[in-house]
Amino acid sequence: MPVTRRLTPVPFTRVTVEDDFWAPRIETNRTATIPAEYMMCESSGRIAAWDLTWSPSDPNPPHIFWDSDVAKWIEAASYTLMTHPDSQLDALLDNAIAKIARAQQPDGYLNTHYIQVEPGKRWTNLRDCHELYCAGHLIEAAVAHYQATGKRTLLDVLCRYADHIDRTFGREPGKLPGYCGHEEIELALVRLFHVTGERRYLDLARYFVDERGQQPYYFDLEARARGEDPANFWAKTYAYMQAHIPVRKQAEVTGHAVRAMYLYSAMADLANETGDTQLLSACERLWDDLCLKRMYLTGGIGPSASNEGFTTPYDLPDETAYAETCAAVGLVFWNHRMLQFEGNGKYADVMERALYNGTISGVSMDGRSFFYVNPLASKGNHHRKGWFDCACCPPNIARMIAGIGGYIYSEGEHDAWVHFYVQGEGRLQVGDLPVRICQVTRYPWDGEVRLTLDMTAPATFRLHLRIPGWCQQYQLWVNDFPMADCQIPADGYVHISRQWVPGDVIRLNLEMPVQYVEANPSVSQTLGRVALQRGPIVYCLESVDNEQLPLDGIIVRGGVPASEMFMPEYRPDLLGGVIVLHGTGGLAGEQPWGNELYRNKTAQYKPVRLTAVPYYAWDNRAPGEMRVWLRIG
Amino acid sequence: MPVTRRLTPVPFTRVTVEDDFWAPRIETNRTATIPAEYMMCESSGRIAAWDLTWSPSDPNPPHIFWDSDVAKWIEAASYTLMTHPDSQLDALLDNAIAKIARAQQPDGYLNTHYIQVEPGKRWTNLRDCHELYCAGHLIEAAVAHYQATGKRTLLDVLCRYADHIDRTFGREPGKLPGYCGHEEIELALVRLFHVTGERRYLDLARYFVDERGQQPYYFDLEARARGEDPANFWAKTYAYMQAHIPVRKQAEVTGHAVRAMYLYSAMADLANETGDTQLLSACERLWDDLCLKRMYLTGGIGPSASNEGFTTPYDLPDETAYAETCAAVGLVFWNHRMLQFEGNGKYADVMERALYNGTISGVSMDGRSFFYVNPLASKGNHHRKGWFDCACCPPNIARMIAGIGGYIYSEGEHDAWVHFYVQGEGRLQVGDLPVRICQVTRYPWDGEVRLTLDMTAPATFRLHLRIPGWCQQYQLWVNDFPMADCQIPADGYVHISRQWVPGDVIRLNLEMPVQYVEANPSVSQTLGRVALQRGPIVYCLESVDNEQLPLDGIIVRGGVPASEMFMPEYRPDLLGGVIVLHGTGGLAGEQPWGNELYRNKTAQYKPVRLTAVPYYAWDNRAPGEMRVWLRIG
Repeated sequence: MPVTRRLTPVPFTRVTVEDDFWAPRIETNRTATIPAEYMMCESSGRIAAWDLTWSPSDPNPPHIFWDSDVAKWIEAASYTLMTHPDSQLDALLDNAIAKIARAQQPDGYLNTHYIQVEPGKRWTNLRDCHELYCAGHLIEAAVAHYQATGKRTLLDVLCRYADHIDRTFGREPGKLPGYCGHEEIELALVRLFHVTGERRYLDLARYFVDERGQQPYYFDLEARARGEDPANFWAKTYAYMQAHIPVRKQAEVTGHAVRAMYLYSAMADLANETGDTQLLSACERLWDDLCLKRMYLTGGIGPSASNEGFTTPYDLPDETAYAETCAAVGLVFWNHRMLQFEGNGKYADVMERALYNGTISGVSMDGRSFFYVNPLASKGNHHRKGWFDCACCPPNIARMIAGIGGYIYSEGEHDAWVHFYVQGEGRLQVGDLPVRICQVTRYPWDGEVRLTLDMTAPATFRLHLRIPGWCQQYQLWVNDFPMADCQIPADGYVHISRQWVPGDVIRLNLEMPVQYVEANPSVSQTLGRVALQRGPIVYCLESVDNEQLPLDGIIVRGGVPASEMFMPEYRPDLLGGVIVLHGTGGLAGEQPWGNELYRNKTAQYKPVRLTAVPYYAWDNRAPGEMRVWLRIG
Repeated sequence: MPVTRRLTPVPFTRVTVEDDFWAPRIETNRTATIPAEYMMCESSGRIAAWDLTWSPSDPNPPHIFWDSDVAKWIEAASYTLMTHPDSQLDALLDNAIAKIARAQQPDGYLNTHYIQVEPGKRWTNLRDCHELYCAGHLIEAAVAHYQATGKRTLLDVLCRYADHIDRTFGREPGKLPGYCGHEEIELALVRLFHVTGERRYLDLARYFVDERGQQPYYFDLEARARGEDPANFWAKTYAYMQAHIPVRKQAEVTGHAVRAMYLYSAMADLANETGDTQLLSACERLWDDLCLKRMYLTGGIGPSASNEGFTTPYDLPDETAYAETCAAVGLVFWNHRMLQFEGNGKYADVMERALYNGTISGVSMDGRSFFYVNPLASKGNHHRKGWFDCACCPPNIARMIAGIGGYIYSEGEHDAWVHFYVQGEGRLQVGDLPVRICQVTRYPWDGEVRLTLDMTAPATFRLHLRIPGWCQQYQLWVNDFPMADCQIPADGYVHISRQWVPGDVIRLNLEMPVQYVEANPSVSQTLGRVALQRGPIVYCLESVDNEQLPLDGIIVRGGVPASEMFMPEYRPDLLGGVIVLHGTGGLAGEQPWGNELYRNKTAQYKPVRLTAVPYYAWDNRAPGEMRVWLRIG
């Protein structure tokens, strides 16, 4: 079985997004988020750090993370340039890039912290200090900027830095046999290989991935070289950074969630580039462990604040969920890569779960404030902030939103895939044939999708239309001929192979009733609870819509389908235009619970009106309680 | 505030039990359990061990627990003699006691294990080896046998042993400043003080209680004396035996549940004997922690098998509940003591919960097999056994049942208390006045109770009638005059102060509808679940009554009172005569869970007929699943 990808993603430069859901977000991202993030980089000293004018007597030393924040901003800004030329932004980027270029050392090295704050100590603490991680983000920024503008200004700088890294690290004598405590450079080097054609970068990525977790542990060696006892490692275990055993042997997701996502993304990339079935099998094993046992309903991952990451299977507390925005974004990155191998819809389902819920919850409706942590319940004390000292999340969500169009379609020699339903257009290349797919739909608020095909001539190819995992019934018409047998496909896609004629119309209706979702009973924290979901959107209750009721006292009625209890209503005025769910429930706890351990369950509940809003949109109005998982009784 | 007890329990020798619930159990205990347990003591070598004929070349060395098993059997058998003279049993006891007396060493020491298996090592490992624990049970046996028969044969032996222990342990120079790893001797010494009047025994009990948990830890010292590193203690922490801090400072129940109950019983005894408010406050604090956060609905305590004891607050798993029979019995012992201080019904409620559910589940209907562990759910693989290598539970439940009459009444200078409703008679002494209280009732199957008072002359005293915690409505008549205002009393008792005339009749009707009981939502394991309860009886479903349905797929209907969904029916033929509950529920027509993490909750249930039986009676018929906590939806 070949492991290279059967699918090739259609880049977002060939996709137009014209819907009411993503298009406004892309615009807000471009006009509000990207400028606001630049201002924060500027005012916090992250831009000035590249001037190399900091001296030990100055306050605010360049932090080990800073380069990556600027890099992710450059990447996100470059993406917006690709779909929306903007000479001002172009100039701003050139200015920042010029600073970066000037900061590069003669040997190619480039890191504002080590050059200024710890000169002479470069590459002495790969475990903790994010040096290669920052390099990775700079490489991704350089690739994005080159692709957006055709300018090699940043790309050449980063090639020199990558060359320096290549000379520094490896198994050969005289090189350091190290790898980064925070993965990122691995996937970045694969991207750099793609734009430059330089195979050394791919080999270096493979070295970093394969050396990880080998014994003797490099982190032990470098700790001893620093005069430290490796046993005193603050995180206690190299599982924190997925470096406790070689990656091919890993079967459990461990440690810091963002690191894991970046590593697995690189593993999937390398599996594709090198035909490495072992790496792909490891990814599949890890996917099962993560997505079948450790993923929040929102696509959030990593329940624990203590390691910003994973704990035990089925441990999914709601109010104390960590579920870092970056981790959900990373989950999208990884699953997008996995989806391309065989076009298995389970990967698109995970992407959709995260895209419509736990990633975009990370940014406010106005695009100017951010969640680092995305709990599924709140007493009312959790709110977005304009920036963070550790500012990884804001530019990460920005680069994801800027590139959202790139997730919608894939193409192949004789195949066209539609993964997501987003109004607009995709310009695919099916073999030699340009195929335009035009989508008209109000998804995610409505499951009706009208797709029109446009080619220069009739052509035979397979069209693969995704039936989302949440959908239990759908109808399909090709040029008004209904498809007879609308089974739910095991691989998540309906495959239509025929000779297509320009102007052919496919109509898909994904029935979208309100659903109660329950979690596997192994998740003790959600036992006896359900969440409201409609289409891909997970709902929550917020105090502001629910008369300040104690949300955990609310009990929704079981024994009746959710669609009979909750009615959707489109509210164009609310939260940028959303479907809210109106329904009734009971307010339990006529007596609030005191310290008693048991009591007679009184059966009558006080009926209350409930209004649920999309989870992603919470905390954009009056502050108050929020809750996804509701008691059912 | 005085801390001595306002109430004095009426001993079971002045109580006649003539109902259909306890009387048959007392009889089965006497005729089946006590003989069967003797046979097991005999056949397992526990009786012969007292002959001191074991030698190192023999198999089956006397185990460190064995003396306590025989002692508890002697105690239980003695109790049955008190209410039912039996010359054969009397002779059997004399025979066993003669062996014990002959085994006593010249200095008073008495322990079959150490005398034979580890001579020379006595008192070298108090932490693990139960030496004083065995002594305590022998003392309780001696007191019981003396009270039952008037014979001092065993009592004198144990006084000599207690004197030896008193010479051995204490803070004075030349004595060992130790205490037992398994509490028991403390409460036993208080009993010995009561029958002998010898104050040294009370002082010794107080020493053992107060020395516990003091630093430096005695268990550390003796471990080092044995050449062991105390850090290697197998249970890791002295909290296992409530010896991590002094008992007066303890606010959390910790460790091994049975040990905790015996310690707290001794603390309550000492608080009463010495007027020690600190000890009583500690008991009250520990009671709150235990009974408001850590007690099963059945009165079982100690959820974890790993330490036979306590974990964290609100951790009450059902299928893996340990809930050792001995621990529930110990809970009764402790709460009986606590009840006597002020007559607060909360202690009687806990006793009732354990007495009617989690203690007597420990013995089969025929009295010949036993549960050590009392889970609240079973897949069908948990069954009673005839005996255990560690056989603490069978004789413990036997001594509790033999003495059940002693829990029903208390008396005081001007007061008579009725704690439990059990058909029969109590012969109280209210000050100088003999008062006979005659109960006619079918309790626990029916809440109607008719009490008749009989004295030689009219007399004024307060009669305190308990309104059980489960009762939410009751009616009361004195000589057919209804009491106007039947509020639920805060302290659990209705107090009637008047001049009583011989032949006065009180009629009490405790309304006893079927109830759904829910646990505090902090108990994650029972969230979204209810249990059926009627009166004091907790019900369960067993496969044998429910067409082999998958019991955890059953969903009882919420939003409707339990009394409308479940109908009681008395079945004289079943399980010794029980009220069963007939009702309907839904079988979640769900696909069994596979490895999926989330799914659409299907709302339609297949209606099924359900029959629930008392929890205590489960596993007396065809083996199968059992479940107390049912899903509600």
